[in-house]
Amino acid sequence: MVTAAAYAVSAPDATFEKVTIDRRELGPTDVAIDIKFAGICHSDIHTARNEWKGTQYPCVPGHEIVGLVSDVGSEVTKFKRGDRVGVGCFVDSCGVCESCVAGEEQYCIKGVVATYNSPLPDGSPTLGGYSTHVVVTEGFVLSIPDGLDLDVAAPLLCAGITLYSPLKHWGAGPGKQVAIIGMGGLGHVGVKIANALGAEVTVLSQSLSKEEDGKRLGAHHYYATSDRNTFKELKNRFDLILNTVSVNLNIDSYLRLLAVNGTLVELGLPENPIEVRASFLAANRRSLAGSMVGGIAQTQEMLDFCAEHGIGAEIEVIAADKIDEAYERVLASNVRYRFVIDAATM
Amino acid sequence: MVTAAAYAVSAPDATFEKVTIDRRELGPTDVAIDIKFAGICHSDIHTARNEWKGTQYPCVPGHEIVGLVSDVGSEVTKFKRGDRVGVGCFVDSCGVCESCVAGEEQYCIKGVVATYNSPLPDGSPTLGGYSTHVVVTEGFVLSIPDGLDLDVAAPLLCAGITLYSPLKHWGAGPGKQVAIIGMGGLGHVGVKIANALGAEVTVLSQSLSKEEDGKRLGAHHYYATSDRNTFKELKNRFDLILNTVSVNLNIDSYLRLLAVNGTLVELGLPENPIEVRASFLAANRRSLAGSMVGGIAQTQEMLDFCAEHGIGAEIEVIAADKIDEAYERVLASNVRYRFVIDAATM
Repeated sequence: MVTAAAYAVSAPDATFEKVTIDRRELGPTDVAIDIKFAGICHSDIHTARNEWKGTQYPCVPGHEIVGLVSDVGSEVTKFKRGDRVGVGCFVDSCGVCESCVAGEEQYCIKGVVATYNSPLPDGSPTLGGYSTHVVVTEGFVLSIPDGLDLDVAAPLLCAGITLYSPLKHWGAGPGKQVAIIGMGGLGHVGVKIANALGAEVTVLSQSLSKEEDGKRLGAHHYYATSDRNTFKELKNRFDLILNTVSVNLNIDSYLRLLAVNGTLVELGLPENPIEVRASFLAANRRSLAGSMVGGIAQTQEMLDFCAEHGIGAEIEVIAADKIDEAYERVLASNVRYRFVIDAATM
Repeated sequence: MVTAAAYAVSAPDATFEKVTIDRRELGPTDVAIDIKFAGICHSDIHTARNEWKGTQYPCVPGHEIVGLVSDVGSEVTKFKRGDRVGVGCFVDSCGVCESCVAGEEQYCIKGVVATYNSPLPDGSPTLGGYSTHVVVTEGFVLSIPDGLDLDVAAPLLCAGITLYSPLKHWGAGPGKQVAIIGMGGLGHVGVKIANALGAEVTVLSQSLSKEEDGKRLGAHHYYATSDRNTFKELKNRFDLILNTVSVNLNIDSYLRLLAVNGTLVELGLPENPIEVRASFLAANRRSLAGSMVGGIAQTQEMLDFCAEHGIGAEIEVIAADKIDEAYERVLASNVRYRFVIDAATM
């Protein structure tokens, strides 16, 4: 057992405190990582505050992890000391079900082992990336390509793959009209990736306050959803709409913006059920779908794609003692566009 | 102008009465049809009773029409007097939009002209198939292949294509697990077609009362949805679920039966919005979709497919003066499985 510094919450309404945690001994297929940066994802907030229920305390969130390999187990072949690596939303899966065999571990029939708050065999929860050190089995460690700075790469491990995977799955590319609802931590990365994939990209944001940023990052069009005219003008327009907003929207209004065979993909998990009129699905043979991050192979593909296209997240690096403040700013949409914790400050 | 006998309702709560209606003069591209049979679709009931609003009275429903060509316009090339033909849910479309050009007239951007209760240029509604005669432009007339009896072919024009189109679109075939919710007018045809396409077919019905029929028509498995165990046993099973039930179900329960990349297609139009949890969509990257009949080319393909596989609807032929009674029996699910009006009784 080795120890690491970490930031944890001990209760739903507690603030973060610096703690010392145990990390497992290096097994033969394990990679030990000195964490350099960890992104703050909205899921971290939901979990830290037990908003999705089932949080075990103390809880160390963080599933956008980048760092340097500090040691490798005897059977590790893909990594060596000093390699630039990342860890995303999950750290293990059954390995034998149809999804795992297909390289889509996120849909593991038995359920993946999430990077934090996932029960280990002894009943204790996994502890995430708000820490200085982590040990992860080789198959769930990603390689960060040269040319991608570690800090801007961190949010790609969740936000990046969460957008990349549905963009690829639903065929975003040249000739396709793609809309992204929400210009936040997820949305801004989606704009960059969708643009790099060659799609015509529209941002649908509550206001036009981030229009300049959106267009700089790759949006061809930018519309305010507070303007009812937006929904008239864009009717039947899009092949693909990715909804990154996790509060309940009037989804029917957005479904009507889909062209024939268009799909609206929910990427957030709003608190209340989504309500849709069957008639809006039947018209234009539309689909409402969900998508959950991406498999390990596709996450590596995404990192390579981002490196090739110079895509990193737009970030604000913070010290570990500012996590509580950062959470409040995320909730107030007061961040452009992702907070990244500097592990050197722990 | 020619006249025809028809059965019409004059108000939402009126019973059907025999009336005489006008049909337009034969234009150069028109086909005049002596109607032999017309199926009774649940949509007819919704429209006759103004349950979807917007019904213009008097209303002559009927969009599952088969008959013999009695005359053709001077420019008609595809049909001649005596040909066995059918007319489905729509009788015209703009012809120039992307959907029409793609042969998916049902998604015509300007809206198709429905076979009944669709406004004509003079403001009067189209009048449907509960009649002895109809005039339809050549491009919207289907050929009923030899080997398909006219009476059992009638319901294929709506029920048949409503099931065939999504089965084809979402790739039902060998190696695919397909479930059909509801063993009624739509469902029973779906079972036959899905089986003929080579899929493994499961019926999800409220009870097991129609199990014997279901298996005889082609279902490999039959489950009662009143049994909670059904939802445990079939979790993550299906690639495609077609919901033919038009009352609101607990769709979340059915979404959980979808395998990775599975799609649940709504074919009915329930009164209230459908409620779904985003988490059940995200898990397994599931989709909730809609589908609306099929284009003319695909309807012809379906008729040819059904003829080749000996597929017709299971029907009960009634006289025209029994329409009101038939409506009540449809609402009570007391028909196996589709009523067809014999136009000779008008």
